[in-house]
Amino acid sequence: MAPQYAPSLRSRLAPTLLLIQVVFIVIFSLYFEIDIQKKERDGNAFNSLYPEFQDVNVMVILGFGFLSTFLVRYGFSSSGFNLLVAAISVQWALILNGLESLYYRGKIKINLRSLVYAEMCTVPALISLGTVLGKTNPVHLIFIVLIEVSGFVLNEWLLHFIVKMQPMKSIMLLHIHGSFFGLVLTWILHRKGSEKKQFEKEKLSRNSGLFSMLGTMFLWMFWPSFNSILVDNYPHGRKFVAVCSTYLSLAVSVATAASVSVMTSPKGKLNLVQIQSSILAGGVAVGVAMPVVYRPYDAMTIGFLAAVLSTLGYKYLKSHMALVFHCHDTCSILSTHALPGLLGWLAQFLVLKDFDDHTMNDNRYQEHRY
Amino acid sequence: MAPQYAPSLRSRLAPTLLLIQVVFIVIFSLYFEIDIQKKERDGNAFNSLYPEFQDVNVMVILGFGFLSTFLVRYGFSSSGFNLLVAAISVQWALILNGLESLYYRGKIKINLRSLVYAEMCTVPALISLGTVLGKTNPVHLIFIVLIEVSGFVLNEWLLHFIVKMQPMKSIMLLHIHGSFFGLVLTWILHRKGSEKKQFEKEKLSRNSGLFSMLGTMFLWMFWPSFNSILVDNYPHGRKFVAVCSTYLSLAVSVATAASVSVMTSPKGKLNLVQIQSSILAGGVAVGVAMPVVYRPYDAMTIGFLAAVLSTLGYKYLKSHMALVFHCHDTCSILSTHALPGLLGWLAQFLVLKDFDDHTMNDNRYQEHRY
Amino acid sequence: MAPQYAPSLRSRLAPTLLLIQVVFIVIFSLYFEIDIQKKERDGNAFNSLYPEFQDVNVMVILGFGFLSTFLVRYGFSSSGFNLLVAAISVQWALILNGLESLYYRGKIKINLRSLVYAEMCTVPALISLGTVLGKTNPVHLIFIVLIEVSGFVLNEWLLHFIVKMQPMKSIMLLHIHGSFFGLVLTWILHRKGSEKKQFEKEKLSRNSGLFSMLGTMFLWMFWPSFNSILVDNYPHGRKFVAVCSTYLSLAVSVATAASVSVMTSPKGKLNLVQIQSSILAGGVAVGVAMPVVYRPYDAMTIGFLAAVLSTLGYKYLKSHMALVFHCHDTCSILSTHALPGLLGWLAQFLVLKDFDDHTMNDNRYQEHRY
Repeated sequence: MAPQYAPSLRSRLAPTLLLIQVVFIVIFSLYFEIDIQKKERDGNAFNSLYPEFQDVNVMVILGFGFLSTFLVRYGFSSSGFNLLVAAISVQWALILNGLESLYYRGKIKINLRSLVYAEMCTVPALISLGTVLGKTNPVHLIFIVLIEVSGFVLNEWLLHFIVKMQPMKSIMLLHIHGSFFGLVLTWILHRKGSEKKQFEKEKLSRNSGLFSMLGTMFLWMFWPSFNSILVDNYPHGRKFVAVCSTYLSLAVSVATAASVSVMTSPKGKLNLVQIQSSILAGGVAVGVAMPVVYRPYDAMTIGFLAAVLSTLGYKYLKSHMALVFHCHDTCSILSTHALPGLLGWLAQFLVLKDFDDHTMNDNRYQEHRY
Repeated sequence: MAPQYAPSLRSRLAPTLLLIQVVFIVIFSLYFEIDIQKKERDGNAFNSLYPEFQDVNVMVILGFGFLSTFLVRYGFSSSGFNLLVAAISVQWALILNGLESLYYRGKIKINLRSLVYAEMCTVPALISLGTVLGKTNPVHLIFIVLIEVSGFVLNEWLLHFIVKMQPMKSIMLLHIHGSFFGLVLTWILHRKGSEKKQFEKEKLSRNSGLFSMLGTMFLWMFWPSFNSILVDNYPHGRKFVAVCSTYLSLAVSVATAASVSVMTSPKGKLNLVQIQSSILAGGVAVGVAMPVVYRPYDAMTIGFLAAVLSTLGYKYLKSHMALVFHCHDTCSILSTHALPGLLGWLAQFLVLKDFDDHTMNDNRYQEHRY
Repeated sequence: MAPQYAPSLRSRLAPTLLLIQVVFIVIFSLYFEIDIQKKERDGNAFNSLYPEFQDVNVMVILGFGFLSTFLVRYGFSSSGFNLLVAAISVQWALILNGLESLYYRGKIKINLRSLVYAEMCTVPALISLGTVLGKTNPVHLIFIVLIEVSGFVLNEWLLHFIVKMQPMKSIMLLHIHGSFFGLVLTWILHRKGSEKKQFEKEKLSRNSGLFSMLGTMFLWMFWPSFNSILVDNYPHGRKFVAVCSTYLSLAVSVATAASVSVMTSPKGKLNLVQIQSSILAGGVAVGVAMPVVYRPYDAMTIGFLAAVLSTLGYKYLKSHMALVFHCHDTCSILSTHALPGLLGWLAQFLVLKDFDDHTMNDNRYQEHRY
């Protein structure tokens, strides 16, 4: 994969995109239909899911789009590419997620839950996009994204059928999946002599910082929706538990990240870019650890540890990674997604009693309930 | 209508606004009351409509307000004027929409549905605002908007009573109505020698581009709410069909617009301003064509064609219109709203089987259901 | 309280924050649990409150955070501090609001309503933050905020047990409480010779103005949710009354503020910063006066008067206050929150018939209903 922008490659973007889009339309015309079920008709399922669907939509399109706008040179194009990548990979995820239903029933039905699920499958792609900003050309980007989404869906499927992990648990591994895919990618794309150019491109400005703050805030505010949208409230009120834990964990993350950031700064200054990448750590960690979270205390401790880990990771690991492993992690997704994600995953193992194992049902394959 | 900013005219803004506002308050004090009905009391109608109402509110106030901020010189004032125009025309639309109820019952009742309806009636005015940015003074703007909203409501009423078109269908003609009103307006306001000044005012900057991207994204994300809010889910699950088709159509639009934009660019560059005006095309077209859309395939084809049409229209029609017809279309609403709107309208005629004719009821005049 | 930025003080930020956060986590671990009740389980209470909760969340985090970004020098840090302050004071408010429940039941249960209530208790702190931007160091800021939230909760409690005022009424006094606390604070922090420095820091720029516009718009759009979220729709449809009155009042405010702003400007120009601080006046006033608002006319008159008062207050009182009372009110919260708040409070007294006294129940202490 050549990181140079060859004009000949650039010229292939238009036909590639067009071809992919036309193939998608043909596949949708053959196999897809909109799911109109009795329960949907009386509007309850729709009404209960739609506001959260829009929150997640805002996170995916706007939040991740503006998260990387702190880079002056990539502000405009990163938000544009984010939208393009999201638009294509949602369609691809809808197709991949429907393969099983296609095999058994010959048709793929789209409902609000499958739309949400498809949007969440695009998140790993958007996360790993943060590492390769300015390193790939758009044509490669499209293929990278299609491969990543396929890998994530395959992984989900394997986890479900081999380890019998519920989709609700495995979907939250998207943070770990997305960030490690991104890190491997940036390692592959590494070229000698490119470090200097990379760091030069990492300029910030006051205004681009505010746009990035805006993206971070939308992610921060709507993270409770992200962690709770696929959780059923019915038997044990777990949906509200997910909302409340995520909210508290994020609040703790902010205070902790600010504190640790000042502590590790030689001049005692608040580094807002560092804080931005760390205040989301609580949401990531508590999302992955959700099955073992019951009390506010659990969520807050996870949020606290995640923020400490993420802030220290940003400070000490980022430059280390670039020098030793040749991974240049532009948007520091290692500290935002990978470390807190691993922490949350670890928490699942350390805490013995797993509340959800016998109570949370596998919703993904019980589509008839919606 | 003089496009020059005469100071004497400017000084008339304050008394004009004040007079209009006081007259509105008097009319509201005489004829309006808040609708508190049994069904509203148990909260179901309110809960099901309110989240979508807020989405539409965000589109109207923030989306259209920031859509035109890519113009460096008009960023601040365009978002301000948009708010002012929306605030006045919502009140005017509430009055006009209530005239029939006033005639029959002597009172106009405001409920959430009538608020939504009034907000949608202001959209044509906000669309046509995009063409006349920097060409009129604020006093004219206020009158233009009042006239346009009146024209749109009258048109709605005529379509309902003469052609027996349901309001759900006719309301979506707002894109066509708004954009042609705007184009005629810019033709009327054309003066010799003003072209140069106009193009000079069309400067962009990186930051103003990001604000515009923000507005576009909010429109893009909440468009499913815009197309579905007035649709009843009850008998045939049409609300979810509207949400899902709009979502898919918009996703297809993004990929198609990016592809066609690169194809028509001599250097193979992504022109984000062009793409911004075209990614919304799918939402416009599918909204107008909604009564004949059942399958994902229908929506995606419409989104594909709308994006192609809109991108080509932006590229070739905009300068053509300015030179031949003396229509200077600052925000290129011709390609964003008019062409996709016409495409959607055409689709309604080309597809024979019209699902909604016998199933969708006229909700506007069945207010007792809410 | 020293307004100088002593480096020694700055270095105390990190341990202070960390200590506060750890103490909060310990308190939460001892006394808090997540409320999982039967009604929550069937999802109705959750579904009806959650979308509005997110609206209020957006207002608190993003709205107030970006409201003060019009100051070029404080844009980035004001949005950051706002988030930090909100994160800490929400936890503090949850603890304080739960004290009574702790005394009677030994446990504090968190539900969605108590989260909303805690967020609203942070708003006075965020309002008064606007006056002290650039005058205090972050350590003082944290303590000021903790004191203010404690004062507000104590005030609420006293109003409830001495004057028997319902929490629904007293919570809306947050505007008055927050702005007068801020004004007193800026008076205390006043130092001779600091005026010049203060005004110098009040520079604006086009882009920072747009960010501020964005914050204002989010506050404007979601204000109906802010005023209605704690109102029960059940017996008299008061929730929709709150939504509709706030919406109309805000619309009237925009037109009135624009008109009065042009009138009082010597060159007849629209001063958007002045308008920004006045268009919210309608929402503030109608929120405080809500118990006596029934008809659209009531809300619109209050919105009209509030906007006039607020615009004139911005024009004539701000510099007056700075010179005579040595209160330098950076974000002009006097005209945005204090004057409209007092107007709304006055309206409650002037209008005799108080609809809500016998119909609205005290929801805060009837948590079993949720």
